[in-house]
Amino acid sequence: MSNESQSKYDLRLVHVMKTSAAIFAEKGYHSTSIRDISRATGMSLSGLYYYFASKEELLFLIQDYCFSTVTSDCKRLIAGVDDPALKLKLLVENHLNYFVKNMNEMKVLSHEANSITGDWFKKVNSKKRQYVDLVKNLLGEIARSQGVKGLDLRVAAFSLFGMMNWIYNWYDSRKDVDVSGLARNITRIFLSGFLGEALVEAEKTGRESHLERPVSVWQQ
Amino acid sequence: MSNESQSKYDLRLVHVMKTSAAIFAEKGYHSTSIRDISRATGMSLSGLYYYFASKEELLFLIQDYCFSTVTSDCKRLIAGVDDPALKLKLLVENHLNYFVKNMNEMKVLSHEANSITGDWFKKVNSKKRQYVDLVKNLLGEIARSQGVKGLDLRVAAFSLFGMMNWIYNWYDSRKDVDVSGLARNITRIFLSGFLGEALVEAEKTGRESHLERPVSVWQQ
Repeated sequence: MSNESQSKYDLRLVHVMKTSAAIFAEKGYHSTSIRDISRATGMSLSGLYYYFASKEELLFLIQDYCFSTVTSDCKRLIAGVDDPALKLKLLVENHLNYFVKNMNEMKVLSHEANSITGDWFKKVNSKKRQYVDLVKNLLGEIARSQGVKGLDLRVAAFSLFGMMNWIYNWYDSRKDVDVSGLARNITRIFLSGFLGEALVEAEKTGRESHLERPVSVWQQ
Repeated sequence: MSNESQSKYDLRLVHVMKTSAAIFAEKGYHSTSIRDISRATGMSLSGLYYYFASKEELLFLIQDYCFSTVTSDCKRLIAGVDDPALKLKLLVENHLNYFVKNMNEMKVLSHEANSITGDWFKKVNSKKRQYVDLVKNLLGEIARSQGVKGLDLRVAAFSLFGMMNWIYNWYDSRKDVDVSGLARNITRIFLSGFLGEALVEAEKTGRESHLERPVSVWQQ
């Protein structure tokens, strides 16, 4: 395939995935037919079946594409950064930047996680697990370097995902703070909450030189 | 209706709601038929239609019952408590205690929020808003009394709901910390995160007597 036809292929598929995610988010996956997708995209059924063999494969492609994109963007952003708290801040910004632009996809990832089966489910789940592990490992690094004690890393990691992912239920970019304000608020609450006593102790005893305090978190 | 028949009525309805929530959570509301509910509850269709006139009314009853219960339990718990941080801690404990025992309902509240319409939707939405307002007002009180600055209360309130409500996606009471550990971790992360610099400042300058620091939050 030439580069030109490759990019035409990708753009059309991305358009189909985006349009389908909006319909799945509104009507639910099970209530949506391939005819609905055909109508909304203006593509024929045979045109659609060029890209996937079934509605379930389309749902798989959407989920796989989202997790691949958000994870690879994140890895690129944090490559070469040493401070685990700064890495976490970049991860939160990237996650929110991506999903504020893709709220339908976020709803579909959440509501239709179990609507794909077999190898497709396994493949998406493995990418999801890698992304969760990335967060858990960053939290472990921060906990060790800052002396955070008594927090369950699994609860902490999924608390952060809960804060970030719940936005599809309430966030309205026309009325609420913009996405950088959203990221700043969430990072500040989560990270100073996670550091908690370690932050207070470090401030109290003036051990600041030993503490890589993520000053950037506090910037307004 | 005598007290005895009243309580029989309630218990049977609660059983139907609980069983239906499990089916809605597994199959989705739109893919579930009243026949499925009939099979799972062992009740006839006419027996079910004694309690509600349609599947949508059943979904409304489930949502209304959950929000009414969690809100009234919460109000009873915080009545007479002055410290807003302690009130928030009790709210988190109550919310998690209730929904860890009702994870199917939590999933249904989230995924099927828009599957009820008209007055039913308005009624549930108004209860939901009252509960959200309770949290936002508590956060406002805490912010004022502790000198928290620069946080958006709407983002903060929904961050807390995100942390608490996301549990239906990951929490497993057989493998994870128990519900009191869950509440302790989430309260600690959220509340010390929300207090943030105010907590650090208070510790640094020794203004502890002026700060109603929610010591209980830190207890392990």
